[in-house]
This record gives sequence, C-alpha cells and structure tokens, in this order.
Amino acid sequence: MNASVNLPSDFLTTIQNIVGEQRVKTDSDTLVTWGKDHTKHFDPNPSVVVFPATTEEVAELVKTANQFNIAITPSGGRTGLSAGAVASNGEMVISLDRMNKVLNFYPADRMVHIQAGMITEQLQEYAESQGMYYPVDFASAGSSQIGGNIGTNAGGIKVIKYGMTRNWVLGLTVVTGKGDILHLNKGMIKNATGYALQHLFIGGEGTLGIVTEAEIKLERQPQDLQVLVLGVPDFDAVMPVLHAFQSKIDLTAFEFFGELAMQKVLDNGHVQRPFESTCPFYVLLEFEAPFEPIMDKAMELFEHCMEQGWVLDGVMSQNLEQVQNLWRLREDISESIAPFTPYKNDISVLITHVPAFIAEIDQIVTENYPDFEICWFGHIGDGNLHLNILKPADLSKDEFFAKCQVVNKYVFETVKKYNGSISAEHGVGMTKKPYLDYTRSDTEIGYMKALKQVFDPNNVMNPGKLFDL
Amino acid sequence: MNASVNLPSDFLTTIQNIVGEQRVKTDSDTLVTWGKDHTKHFDPNPSVVVFPATTEEVAELVKTANQFNIAITPSGGRTGLSAGAVASNGEMVISLDRMNKVLNFYPADRMVHIQAGMITEQLQEYAESQGMYYPVDFASAGSSQIGGNIGTNAGGIKVIKYGMTRNWVLGLTVVTGKGDILHLNKGMIKNATGYALQHLFIGGEGTLGIVTEAEIKLERQPQDLQVLVLGVPDFDAVMPVLHAFQSKIDLTAFEFFGELAMQKVLDNGHVQRPFESTCPFYVLLEFEAPFEPIMDKAMELFEHCMEQGWVLDGVMSQNLEQVQNLWRLREDISESIAPFTPYKNDISVLITHVPAFIAEIDQIVTENYPDFEICWFGHIGDGNLHLNILKPADLSKDEFFAKCQVVNKYVFETVKKYNGSISAEHGVGMTKKPYLDYTRSDTEIGYMKALKQVFDPNNVMNPGKLFDL
Repeated sequence: MNASVNLPSDFLTTIQNIVGEQRVKTDSDTLVTWGKDHTKHFDPNPSVVVFPATTEEVAELVKTANQFNIAITPSGGRTGLSAGAVASNGEMVISLDRMNKVLNFYPADRMVHIQAGMITEQLQEYAESQGMYYPVDFASAGSSQIGGNIGTNAGGIKVIKYGMTRNWVLGLTVVTGKGDILHLNKGMIKNATGYALQHLFIGGEGTLGIVTEAEIKLERQPQDLQVLVLGVPDFDAVMPVLHAFQSKIDLTAFEFFGELAMQKVLDNGHVQRPFESTCPFYVLLEFEAPFEPIMDKAMELFEHCMEQGWVLDGVMSQNLEQVQNLWRLREDISESIAPFTPYKNDISVLITHVPAFIAEIDQIVTENYPDFEICWFGHIGDGNLHLNILKPADLSKDEFFAKCQVVNKYVFETVKKYNGSISAEHGVGMTKKPYLDYTRSDTEIGYMKALKQVFDPNNVMNPGKLFDL
Repeated sequence: MNASVNLPSDFLTTIQNIVGEQRVKTDSDTLVTWGKDHTKHFDPNPSVVVFPATTEEVAELVKTANQFNIAITPSGGRTGLSAGAVASNGEMVISLDRMNKVLNFYPADRMVHIQAGMITEQLQEYAESQGMYYPVDFASAGSSQIGGNIGTNAGGIKVIKYGMTRNWVLGLTVVTGKGDILHLNKGMIKNATGYALQHLFIGGEGTLGIVTEAEIKLERQPQDLQVLVLGVPDFDAVMPVLHAFQSKIDLTAFEFFGELAMQKVLDNGHVQRPFESTCPFYVLLEFEAPFEPIMDKAMELFEHCMEQGWVLDGVMSQNLEQVQNLWRLREDISESIAPFTPYKNDISVLITHVPAFIAEIDQIVTENYPDFEICWFGHIGDGNLHLNILKPADLSKDEFFAKCQVVNKYVFETVKKYNGSISAEHGVGMTKKPYLDYTRSDTEIGYMKALKQVFDPNNVMNPGKLFDL
C-alpha cells in the first residue's frame, strides 16, 4: 500500500524542502505504523508521513497543506482509544516524534518548557531528576506523548488530587489550521488579558491546530504514599467511604473495581487476594502520610467504616512493596481482561449519580444480554467509570460487537439522562463521533463548528474527527 | 441624567414584559449607581438598568437587544478595576443582583450549583455552613459577585495553593451574544467531548455572553493555618526563601511587600511592626500546620534562611489573633495608601524574572521621576505584582496621572520584554484596552475578534471592552 502516488509531486517536493528528504516517508511500513492508534476499527491509509523538527517547520507544512488542500493528521504516541490519530483517508501524518526536547527549565516557577513530542514518562522522569513531580499518569504513559495528552486533556489515576492535563498547562505554542504560530499564555499563572485560547487546543483533538510546545507546571514529589484496599458490601457503600476519608485526609487516588475485575487479575497469577473476604466491590485509596498522626487517622477512619457496615474487610500497606502490589490489583485490570475482547466505554457522571447509574446499566445489560459479563472499574473519585463488557466465549467477535453497539445506545441514553459524558478522558475521535450529541447540545456543536471555521477555514486539521462539517 | 428617552418605546415595553415593569429602572440614581465600577476614569451613562431573575429572562433580554441593536453591559458587584462593567455609552445594564440563589448542593461531588449574581463572600459562607471551603478570596469579596469573578478569572491571595477562579468552575450556564442558552460541562471533572467552551467565558469579561449560573467546586476547610512574616535584605533574597519553604511545606500564601507599604500600614495605627528590624522587603508565608512536625519543619527552615543571610528577622504566629494581625500587614496596604491617590498597575511575569523586572522598573521610575514613591506589593508566589505609584503631595492629580501614563509605557515595554502580562487579575476592560498588544500578539487578537464574531455577531455584548472591533 502506497497512496503517495495520489499526491501532487510538487506538494512532495515542497514538503521535502521544508523538513529534508529523509524526513518524508511514503513506504508502506511507515504509512501503516504512523497511520493508526490503539483502536482497530479503521484501516490506516495515509499518503505520507512527515517528521518536522521545529514549530516553524510545522507551520510551513500546515501552510503547504492549505495550498494543496491536503488533510493533516497530527500524530503523537498514537495510544489513543477513540481513533483521534488514525489517518484512514490519504492524509499527511505530521509526527511530533523528533520534537521531544526540554527547551528550558524554570525552578522558581516549578515549570518546564518542552516540545510536544516528548513521551509522558520522559517528562515524569525529567521532573524527578529535578526533584519535582509531573502528576498526570496512566497506563500508556510509557509511549503517549505530551502533545497527545494535551489534545485529549488526558486524565488518569491521580486526577482526584491533581486534576487533568489542563491543570498543568501554563502555556502552549500552537500552529493553527491557517498556519499561524501562537504563543499562548507564555507560562503565566495569572494573565487576565482576554480569551484563554489555549483551553480550546487542550482537548481539541488536533482539529484546530497542532500543539508544538508546552510550558508545563510541576509539583513537589509526593511523600510516603500509603495505600488502603477495602472490600465493600454494595456500591452504595462506596460513597460514604469516600466522604468519610475525604473530609479528613487529602486523597491522591480513590479507585474502585468489582469482584469480576479482581478475579481476572488474580487469575493472571501475579498478585494475591489482598484479604480473605470476597466482596462485591473494592476501593483503593492512596494518600500521603509523612507524619504518624495521618496513619492513626486513617486507621480510625477504617475502623469507623467497618463499624458502620460500609466496609467488610481491608488492608493497609506496610511498605513500598505492598503499595506497589496493592496498586497492581487495580492497574492490571486492563491487561487481565484483554483476552476477553472487552468492549470498552469510558464514561463520566457526577459522583452523586454514580450508584443509580451503575444500577441502571447493570439492569439493562442483564435484561437484554444475560450472558454478558460487565467488568466495572474506574476513577470513582472523579465520577469516571470504565465499563467493560466481556465477550462470551461462544459468541463470534462480529456478533459480540454488533450487540455491544445496541447496548451502547442504552448506555449513552442513560449517560444523557444523568447529564454525563460519553467520553470522560479518551476523547471523541471517530469512534465516539456518532454519539457526541448525547453530551453536547446541537447548539453547542454548532458553536464548535464555527470555532473550527475560525482556526481552520479550509478544514485541513484532522478532518473527520470530533464531528463532520 | 436620564438617557432612556433615546430608547425606542417598544424596546422598553418589550423588556418590561420580560422581567416585569418594576425590574426596569431608568431613574438617574439607578443609572449612575449600576453604570459604574470601582474605576473613576469614565462617566457612567447607561440608558436603562434591568434586573432579571432567571437565565431564560436573560436570554430574552439578549435577543431583544439584538432585535433593537441595543448594547448590553453585564453587571455583577461592580468592584472591577479596569472599567469592564462601566456603561458609559447608553447601554442596557443587565444586573445579576436578583440571581443570587443556591440552586443545588452535591456533597459527594463537593460542588454547589449557584446563580451567578451570588456575592463571593456569600458563597464562602455557604461553603462554610456545609463544612466546606471556597478558596478564591480577595479584598472586594464582600461585594463582588461570582459572575464577575468568572468574567475576569479572579485570583487573589490564595492562588499559590488553590489557583484562579477558573480552577473552581466545573460548569457554566451562559447566554451567548446571540441569545442562546448553553449548559457547559455540567459539573463534570472529566469530560473529553470537544472544545471546552466554558473556558472562553471565564475571563471573557462579558464580551461573548452573560454567565448566569455556575457549578462551583468546593474544597475541605484548611486546618490550623499559621503565618510567618520575614524581613529580607533585598529582593534577590525572596526567591531562595520561597524555594526553601516550598520544597518542604505546602504554602497556602506567599505574599510580599516593601518597607514603604509597611510604613503606610503602620501609620494607619491599627497594627504594630511585627519585629524590631526595619527591612527593605517583607514576605508573608501561610501554611496549614495540623501536625506538630510541620511547625518544627517551619522553624528549621526559618533558621536555615537566617543562617544563609536570606532573612534578617521574622516572627511566627502563636495563635489565631496573631495570624489575623500578621495578615493585616499585607491586607491593609490598599486601604492605607488610598489617601496618596495611588496609580495602580497589576502585572505578572514569570517568578524567575521578578527580581530583574522589579529592579528595571525601579530604575526607570527613579531616573525619570525621582520624586515618585513606588509602593510594591503582591502575590509573589505566582508572579503577580501590584505596582502602586504614590502621588507627591505638591503635584496636581491631573499632572500626576499624565506623568503616570508616560511611566505606563515604560512599565508595559518592560512587561513585554519579559513576556509578561499587562493585567494579571484585573482584566482589560477599557483602562487596559490600549495596551492589550503588549501581551497578546496581533494574530492572537485577530483570532479573539473572530471568536467574538461567532458568539456575538451583532456586537451587543459589552462593546468597547477588551478591544474595539
């Protein structure tokens, strides 16, 4: 497969002149690899993959794309789960792989200025090397890029304390769909000079422009993290447990998972059940405990929750190894259920509505598809639920996915009923595009399309993602 | 003064039908009072002041303004310092005064849904009544409204720990300049479904639409706050002190002020000098100390800073009364210098650049206006400096302000040199409008104007503020 023959030859010459001949690839291996993300629903089919080194080169590429009317797919670590970075329609892929440098470090501001192609884990490691901490973390941090994190406003497992990627962006350099270079907010904490344009590019999925550099805020390193895993009798008990702990201790994580998820992780054989009791649901709490009285307070809260009947059993970490093993109970879920071809949804409702929401979805699936197993887990501290339906062994993949599409409709109708989000942290891309109006009103979508027109009048930036014009 | 005679009578009838006759005011007292904010540069001259009670009424008013081509000035607590809420050109003022209710409280989400006309202090008190905390705080919190805080992305004295107003907005209901009602983000922490439109209205100064309701995140109450006031030998010593404390203790405030500010506060007679030494500059640190080891750590850091020569003298609060008195050294500055007709600038640069920036400005003013006194103070923990030039007694007000305008140019050129902001937390409004391009590029301003066109095509929303079309 080599679709580059469709490209005008003077277009190829022009972009070779911008980035150098060896940075323009049209071989089929490159096209396939850089044309896809972690989704499998769409076949990659870009025309050309380009590897610029500077913001100025990106701007020249975007201007050239406008001249020749060539669509662009911005490309980071390609770990997305919504096909936001899939090039399936002859696009020019602009990969940020070479733009992975630290440009400047400002210790007094606790801020680092980086290129957007830096791997998330590299930023975490750089922060650590400076005695600091970058708190956005999730399973794919080892290959995702900061530019992609910004494009989808990535969240992850520490959001309850540290917030989303958006909270850590103090400035952005972007190339708009028109090819303009904007230096937005320039690292300031306080800047009240008109519209905060950077916030449109954060979560904009590359449809308004390409993020090429970012000023990122860092935090002090967490001290003496401790983990509690508690078994609860039903989902309704999760909320008072959250409330009790949160009012006394600053939690850095509050995760939950069901017994089915626990079983799948245990079946994998790497970790053991944390305590004897089998419980319908589990919560994992993490907090800093640099002072002895905090541990005393945690034990007191644990006992209080037991007395109230909100908690059936539990365990607290005694050392770093136990912290890591307890975290694996939660973090290994995705990998452990992968062999069951899970159908994934990443949804969000107010924490207040989570118990009723889960009960309704469970009922819908049980009634319509009694042979389906639902594996619930998620970042309950911020209302983000990962709903994974496991494929029954005797059902073909196609039949399973077809049935899941039907379930989808019920799920998203329930999301809409509770004023929730059809995509909490995975973005819309192509996979959630048909469902956007379950979360955003038609009027809102109308304004979004008008904003797209402002920044990208020729619709060259990641067309076909988020919405169709 | 009663300009309402200029309004078409069917316009007045229409808006009376929307909100009720007694909610439409054209008497001169009302026009003058609701037509101005805390600035004195522009004379108030609205045509009519309207007091709607619901989002729907606001939407009807905006639609009517579009039909009749009447400009709107959205009006909150009118405590602004940039003339963003001044109606000087026959506008219809839409006051949110009656929209001051709590609509819903979500304890599990730590969130409250309010109308935008609620006074900031009322929200703080409501949070407290629920055992929670709303951390955005500043001198005018007793009369400013949340809608205005959102419109200017208000900051204040706790930003170093808690961030700006933006961080606490989980959802907005807005009426756009076209009269559309949008429910943006609906209180979710995680919602990756396209452009985060709410962030345009936050800091948008009412030029894109009117914020009518907000979902506001609350925080746990701070525990056992302690305050340290330290005297430092020169500005360069401030940074290592910040760095030393910040790496060990989570600061809730890090404020600074010069000896001149200290003198003016002491002259006022309400508080005493915190320690014997007279120092060029002072810093005030605040932190939570619910556990004894934190106080020990603070004492250790204090001694370390003394040994290094970064600190000349200092005092730590021993009880709540001392906490309050130490805070007055900083909080009483504005009031204490008011008799000196201060010319105020509210600027921001990276913390890294603050020492060089202050030195340059001091030099410029000393060289050009040796009789001017500069009173420096500000939220140094986030790079926000309040630069106040005091009027010499023998200079007329007009002459003084004329000279300050010349100084302004130097100040803003220095701001630009350091990539800073000409307005850190006061907004642009009319007073900073001529200087917007010192912080935002012409290309950025071009995009801002295009966004304005999207949300407010007839330019009815707060025209003449932020920029001219």
